[in-house]
Amino acid sequence: MNGDRKAISKAISLVENREEGYEDLLAALYPRTGRAFIIGVTGPPGTGKSTLVDQMVRLFRAQNLQVAVIAIDPTSPVSGGAILGDRVRMLDHALDQGVYIRSMASRGDEGGLSRGAKNSVRILDAAGNDIVIVETVGTGQAEVEIVKVADVIVVVLMPELGDEIQAIKAGLMEIGDIFVVNKSDLPGADRVIYDIDAILSEKHSGWKQIAMAVSSKTGKGLGALVESLKDYRNLQNSNATLAQRKERLKEEVIEAAVFSLAQTARKSISSDPELESLLERVGKRELDPEGAARLLSGEHARRLAANEVQREEK
Amino acid sequence: MNGDRKAISKAISLVENREEGYEDLLAALYPRTGRAFIIGVTGPPGTGKSTLVDQMVRLFRAQNLQVAVIAIDPTSPVSGGAILGDRVRMLDHALDQGVYIRSMASRGDEGGLSRGAKNSVRILDAAGNDIVIVETVGTGQAEVEIVKVADVIVVVLMPELGDEIQAIKAGLMEIGDIFVVNKSDLPGADRVIYDIDAILSEKHSGWKQIAMAVSSKTGKGLGALVESLKDYRNLQNSNATLAQRKERLKEEVIEAAVFSLAQTARKSISSDPELESLLERVGKRELDPEGAARLLSGEHARRLAANEVQREEK
Repeated sequence: MNGDRKAISKAISLVENREEGYEDLLAALYPRTGRAFIIGVTGPPGTGKSTLVDQMVRLFRAQNLQVAVIAIDPTSPVSGGAILGDRVRMLDHALDQGVYIRSMASRGDEGGLSRGAKNSVRILDAAGNDIVIVETVGTGQAEVEIVKVADVIVVVLMPELGDEIQAIKAGLMEIGDIFVVNKSDLPGADRVIYDIDAILSEKHSGWKQIAMAVSSKTGKGLGALVESLKDYRNLQNSNATLAQRKERLKEEVIEAAVFSLAQTARKSISSDPELESLLERVGKRELDPEGAARLLSGEHARRLAANEVQREEK
Repeated sequence: MNGDRKAISKAISLVENREEGYEDLLAALYPRTGRAFIIGVTGPPGTGKSTLVDQMVRLFRAQNLQVAVIAIDPTSPVSGGAILGDRVRMLDHALDQGVYIRSMASRGDEGGLSRGAKNSVRILDAAGNDIVIVETVGTGQAEVEIVKVADVIVVVLMPELGDEIQAIKAGLMEIGDIFVVNKSDLPGADRVIYDIDAILSEKHSGWKQIAMAVSSKTGKGLGALVESLKDYRNLQNSNATLAQRKERLKEEVIEAAVFSLAQTARKSISSDPELESLLERVGKRELDPEGAARLLSGEHARRLAANEVQREEK
């Protein structure tokens, strides 16, 4: 809580790997959280998110704010490790005690990214950071997850995106609060801003999505981005967003409960003596896989339902 | 089962949306499955997967094989619909009765992509297709999922990939059976092939990963790709891969059982009368979200465990 980097790193590892004692640590830290502003930065591959985050860190540091960055990398499905985990990034900030940078692998399991990232963000929050930036490649699943973690979502785009990236962009339009057209020194930037402007809409709690041209290279537009983030923060501290935050917390608690229950269920089902004979029947095509699954989960489901009935009777 | 397109489309929609009766449909079709060869095609955005799939379809059709394509598109996290759903693609094949093409959205829920896609593949298998191609953008979660669906994985790369794409590539190296360097008319193709060749390794059941240069534009290398797929198929029909397939089926059944149980658990937990008071305590920071989740799932978990003990006593 005094910002010791070694302690922070150790705490994040503990929570990330759900090692023994991580629950107690989170419980102990939780009362100290709620002060940091969590900025999610996402976008298609190649739009220059890391460089933009570097520049944002620079500006926040110039305002004497304490900043932490969590970079979530695409996971290797087999080894489960972060591919970019060992990349040497942001060397400029390496010696700055006011900046903490951490790479983290996205996980394959449900809610894995959001739980791991969310709890790591809480550690960085309790450690006294003013700003926590969570950076992730925005394609598919990761988009959904970052919404659960961050207070504000910055979507990074650039001119000259291919067709497939355009499709990814469409998905990002729905989650973004601020759209940054990065590399705005490239031709076509005006056109992209124009296109995005046309589809911006009023989001939750009175915030209207905005788009701005930025060049991480020349620094153009970076000041405006930081100002917009401040505007968002001020709005967020108003009462209007409280209901939304409460709803998100509720969803988090339900998800975590379901997740831990699903793990127990997996253990129980994997060791079910009926499993092998059902699989044999599936092998002979007497039974389909979904049917086998229904037979396996039936008994457990009945018990959960019975639990509910009992509660109602109380 | 006689290949009627309207019936196939209706069946896939039924299964995709888990509408009433989908379980019976899957159970009825399952005995007719197991004949089709499922080819997964994945790779970073912009590598020309769709054009390559078009060309593959053309070659398979020339061999008088019946082909179906499922294109899995990045999902819009809010609306849940497929972003590319309405794209007009493969107009060449639109009038060919031997080709069925379907767009599908990837889902946010655990195992959503693999279950939806897997069951749709089964419908297309039962409908008499010789080849089913499942095409998906390979970034993050989608990579993991396609391994569960396809018999063989074709990873599509191209020269001149940026740094971030290189990282995604690293993840794809582990899951690919055949690597296609597409757009091999571009400069740098030889270099990419050379780099990949250096890290190819022996995969499961004696298959060594291979890399080949292809140009969807000029048609170069397409014949070799189709030949390699045939080689893979022949290997797959040998006994060596049976154990692997059995393991995959087991994992599918367990996952489906856990998934359906998790859904029941979510319902039960969401309507738990304790939920609101726990959330209030979390709001006051007397309790952390994970702690609240543990209190919620505790009773259910105890019952699942009790179930296991009972079984052991039997």
